[in-house]
Amino acid sequence: MKLTILGCYAATPRTLTNPTAQVLEIKNHVFLIDCGEATQVQLRKSKIKFSKIEHIFISHLHGDHVYGLIGLVSTFMLLNRTADLHIYGPKGIKEIITLQLRLSNSWTSYGLFFHELESAESQVVFEDDKVLVKTIPLKHRIYTNGFLFEEKIGEKKLNPYAMQQYQIPVYHFQNIKNGKDITLEDGTVLANSLLAFEPNPPKSYAFCSDTVYDESIVPYIKGVDVLYHESTFLESEAELATKTMHSTARQAATVARLAGVKQLVLGHYSTRYDRIERFRDEALAEFPEVLLANDGETFNF
Amino acid sequence: MKLTILGCYAATPRTLTNPTAQVLEIKNHVFLIDCGEATQVQLRKSKIKFSKIEHIFISHLHGDHVYGLIGLVSTFMLLNRTADLHIYGPKGIKEIITLQLRLSNSWTSYGLFFHELESAESQVVFEDDKVLVKTIPLKHRIYTNGFLFEEKIGEKKLNPYAMQQYQIPVYHFQNIKNGKDITLEDGTVLANSLLAFEPNPPKSYAFCSDTVYDESIVPYIKGVDVLYHESTFLESEAELATKTMHSTARQAATVARLAGVKQLVLGHYSTRYDRIERFRDEALAEFPEVLLANDGETFNF
Repeated sequence: MKLTILGCYAATPRTLTNPTAQVLEIKNHVFLIDCGEATQVQLRKSKIKFSKIEHIFISHLHGDHVYGLIGLVSTFMLLNRTADLHIYGPKGIKEIITLQLRLSNSWTSYGLFFHELESAESQVVFEDDKVLVKTIPLKHRIYTNGFLFEEKIGEKKLNPYAMQQYQIPVYHFQNIKNGKDITLEDGTVLANSLLAFEPNPPKSYAFCSDTVYDESIVPYIKGVDVLYHESTFLESEAELATKTMHSTARQAATVARLAGVKQLVLGHYSTRYDRIERFRDEALAEFPEVLLANDGETFNF
Repeated sequence: MKLTILGCYAATPRTLTNPTAQVLEIKNHVFLIDCGEATQVQLRKSKIKFSKIEHIFISHLHGDHVYGLIGLVSTFMLLNRTADLHIYGPKGIKEIITLQLRLSNSWTSYGLFFHELESAESQVVFEDDKVLVKTIPLKHRIYTNGFLFEEKIGEKKLNPYAMQQYQIPVYHFQNIKNGKDITLEDGTVLANSLLAFEPNPPKSYAFCSDTVYDESIVPYIKGVDVLYHESTFLESEAELATKTMHSTARQAATVARLAGVKQLVLGHYSTRYDRIERFRDEALAEFPEVLLANDGETFNF
C-alpha cells in the first residue's frame, strides 16, 4: 500500500504549498483522493501515470478539495483517454463538471460516471474482488465524507514444499488456496494447515478530511493500519478549530488513540505555522506513531 | 504600460508551463486577462498584489483560459477582500462561478459583478477617464473575444519655465492643460503652445487569443503599440492550426504587418515544439518587431 501526498495544506494554493490531493495505490488500483487546484501538475511532478487513475473520490465541495477536478477531466480528454473514469463525491459534483464541459463545448472521449453521495450513513461506494471502499460520514461546514479503503483477505498461499512432498495434483490447488482440506486418491486426508500459508493480512487506510473533532467516527476506523486525519490547527487555536469545524493535531491524535490505529498521518495544515513539526510534537503527547504528510512525499505501508 | 505574462502555453498546465493568464498595468489599473488553472499561484510568484485586481477579462470558456477563475474568486474571499470585482466574459461565466460558490456554501465578502458578453460585434466593456476597453470579436471553436486596451489622450503638461516667465496665475493652469490660450490681466494673449507640452501619446494593447488566422480583426487593432497574437503552431502545422482554429507564428506576424502595429508579442505555444525561439524565427519573415512571451516575464512598453 503506497500513499503519495500531492497536496496537504489548507485553503488556497501558494507558491510552495498545494491544497488537498493524494494518491493511494492499493492492490492493482491507483485511487485519487480529493483534487485541489493544480492537482494535475502535482501528478506530473510525482510521475504518476494519468491513465492509471480510474476512480476519484472527493470528500466535499470546498475549493481546496475539488477545484482541480475539471482541469483533470479536461486533460484526460486532451490525452485521448478511452478508459472509463468514475467520480465519487457529494451531490452537485456532476452539475459542476458537466456545466463547464457544456459551456466549453467539450465532451469526453471516455466514459465519465458520477456516483453522487448524499447519505448521512456510511455506505459502500466501490467494491471488487480485492478492495472495498466505504464512506466515513464527517462533520464539517458542508456535507463531507471521509473514505475507508480496505483490502479484502486474499487466498491462502500454497506451500511449495508440501506440494512436492505429497505430490499434490494441480486440480487440488484452488481448493487448498480456498482453505479446504483435501483427500488424496489413496484416501489420505491432508489438513489445509499442512499445505498452505496464511494470506498476507489485509491492509486498510482511512482518509478523514475535513472534520471537526468527532469521536463518532471511531467505530468506522477501528484498528486501521493508517489513518490520515486532518490537523488544520494546533491546540493554541482550538477555539478557531471548533468554529471552522476543523481539528487540532492533538484532537487528531486522540481519535487515532481511541480507534487503536497503527499509524497516524497528519495533514491539511494551516499555513499560519512556521514549522509543520509542531503538529507532530503536539500529537505525540496523545499517540506514539505519528507521521507528517508533506507535498510530494510518498509513504509505503 | 507594463505586461506580465503569468502563463502563455496552450492546453493543459504542466510542470514548467502555465496556461493563459496575463496582467496589464495601464494607467492606474491592474487588469487580469484570462485565468487558466493555478493563475493565483503565478500571481503570487510575480508578486502582484491580489487586492489591486478589480477587473478580470476572460476571452472564452475553454479551460486553459478560465479554470483558475473560481480559485481566485475564492481566495479573494479568504483574504477578506472588500473591494468590488468585475468579471467580463462570455455568457455562462456567471453560472459557472455562482454554481460552485453555492455548492460550497461560500459567498463573497465583496461585490462580485459579472458582465456577460454575447455580441458578435465589438463593444466597449469598460471605460473611465483614462482607459477604454473594447472587445475584439475573434473566430475560434467557441464564442471568443480579444480585448483592446486604449489609454485616452491625457491633459497637456504645463511648461514650468513658461509659467515662471509669464508669471501665470494658478487659476489658469487647468485651462492651459485643457489646451486653451489665455489672456493675462494686461490683455496679453498667450498661445497655448507657448505654455504647455503635448501629452504623452496614449498607448494601446490588443490581446488576441485564441483565434484562427482572420484578417477581419485588422481594423480593430490598426496601429496599436503592442499586439499579443496567439501562435499555437508553426507553419509546418498550418493545417492543424486551421482545423483547431488556431494560428501559426507566420499568420500572427501577417496580421501584425497588415495592422501596422508597433510590436508583436507571440504566445499560446503548443508544447510540442522544442524551443519557442522557432516561433520568433518564423514570424520575423513577415514582421520585424517580434517579442516572445514566456511565463513570469515582464515587458515595459
